[in-house]
Amino acid sequence: MRLLTFATTGDQASRVGALRDADRRVVDIGRSAAELGLETPFDSRDMISVISAGQPGLDVIRTIVNHASTDFLLADVQVNAPIPRPRKNIFCVGWNYQDHFEEGAKIRPHVKEMPAFPTFFTKAPTTVIGPFDPIPFFGGLSAQLDWEVELAVVVGRAGRDIPEANAMEYVFGYTVLNDVTWRDVQRRHGQQWFKGKSIDGTCPMGPWITSADEIDPESLDLSSRVNGESKQTSNTRHMYFKIPRIIAELSHGLTLEPGDVIATGTPPGVGHARTPPEFMKPGDVLETEVAGLGLLRNLIATAA
Amino acid sequence: MRLLTFATTGDQASRVGALRDADRRVVDIGRSAAELGLETPFDSRDMISVISAGQPGLDVIRTIVNHASTDFLLADVQVNAPIPRPRKNIFCVGWNYQDHFEEGAKIRPHVKEMPAFPTFFTKAPTTVIGPFDPIPFFGGLSAQLDWEVELAVVVGRAGRDIPEANAMEYVFGYTVLNDVTWRDVQRRHGQQWFKGKSIDGTCPMGPWITSADEIDPESLDLSSRVNGESKQTSNTRHMYFKIPRIIAELSHGLTLEPGDVIATGTPPGVGHARTPPEFMKPGDVLETEVAGLGLLRNLIATAA
Repeated sequence: MRLLTFATTGDQASRVGALRDADRRVVDIGRSAAELGLETPFDSRDMISVISAGQPGLDVIRTIVNHASTDFLLADVQVNAPIPRPRKNIFCVGWNYQDHFEEGAKIRPHVKEMPAFPTFFTKAPTTVIGPFDPIPFFGGLSAQLDWEVELAVVVGRAGRDIPEANAMEYVFGYTVLNDVTWRDVQRRHGQQWFKGKSIDGTCPMGPWITSADEIDPESLDLSSRVNGESKQTSNTRHMYFKIPRIIAELSHGLTLEPGDVIATGTPPGVGHARTPPEFMKPGDVLETEVAGLGLLRNLIATAA
Repeated sequence: MRLLTFATTGDQASRVGALRDADRRVVDIGRSAAELGLETPFDSRDMISVISAGQPGLDVIRTIVNHASTDFLLADVQVNAPIPRPRKNIFCVGWNYQDHFEEGAKIRPHVKEMPAFPTFFTKAPTTVIGPFDPIPFFGGLSAQLDWEVELAVVVGRAGRDIPEANAMEYVFGYTVLNDVTWRDVQRRHGQQWFKGKSIDGTCPMGPWITSADEIDPESLDLSSRVNGESKQTSNTRHMYFKIPRIIAELSHGLTLEPGDVIATGTPPGVGHARTPPEFMKPGDVLETEVAGLGLLRNLIATAA
């Protein structure tokens, strides 16, 4: 199942939809449930509520999608981030592709060896924008706007101290995000990455969540392009810490909750490690893709 | 005004109260408003809603407190964290007292000079516990449970790129928190502090929010004690980056929102920097105090 958060010109309210007809059409879950006289075990305006309903919720959605008499063309709806407002910061894993760790080593003042534990940092919920929204350019802050394509895991169940062996049971699905980074800002705050990772609009996400049953997350091509030019191409099989290990490490002593988002790290090819370094500027178009999960396309735009 | 989130044996629902009678008694804002026939511009069950109502909300609360015919003894209510569930991670400033920066330098592999910009990191919302709740001890995770008393700023208005000169207009009030830290976990995740700062129950907060009009945040004594023994004593006048600078730097390109919490850093005296190092264990009692703002008292308890 592929679930998105969307609005239409006829109804600006953000709500959950599901794709059908080879991803060409969107079923409005709430409206169709009402038309079919079906009760839903979730609030169809809220993706986190849908996620929290787990497999029973997905079963109801499948019934709705199979029987809905009306839908929208995907091309006609406004696609928002699948979780427009996460309930906490997005969890991120740094240095999770060996080649990306190494491409940054030449300019890194510390941490010369890949750490034995995953490197976790966060992005504020205010970074989240839709898959086709503009990324604001804050010229007064920095000129070093960089890209980082990532596979994101959406947590489906609450848990703490989750063993690696059971970790995949806690995954609701997957989505695409770009951990857009203001590179010099990332470094200048005492080597804690949070600020440079949490500037407004630096987390385009979507275009939808693909449920875990449809995807093998360990062999997905992922790529980024700027103005059509390839910048990053890799495959999730090169992840250093695999998803079960990430979930086990993150949840050790820390409760994960439905709707939590975990970005799993970026492969090599980021702008700052290029010779000469490359960064994005207003007017550029950033494309972010994970094969089978979808494509984000974001214009860099002067901040309002 | 001093605002708290509380429950009673007669009504377990969490709700906002205000102190009166020299902080001995608690007025139930929602119930008293109803008894007085007053409409409130906020949801009295939700501190973030109260904060978002700003000065007009505080004016209504003042009227309610002055006219309420019933109240509770503070000693009879259960005091929760004033914001039991922040809408995003708590913003934290690291290394904000020069002496604390220096006490850690001897064991730090990098960052030998105080950074020119504040060091920001975060604590997940799942860390927040009440001012008198137990702090869970995760023996399987680490043995290095450390303390960090901090003054916390509660943001009252949304803003981005806030100039230092106007920054204090964005402060709703102040509260006390302890940035409890699992010290070795803080260091072992690629030098990003998030994981070691975000273990469940590591952010006791409260006991209430004191509105900004009642406090000069730049000259407050702050202290921590373990089993009655003094560990940290300092004054907020020793903060390296003052509150206006913190707000200006943090909000540069990053939208702050009502209810956001900013922990402003800890003074020297933390456990890991002592000779020999000291850490907390189950049965210990941690006290955290900012003079004029209140006292937290948390038992270290074996995790369930």
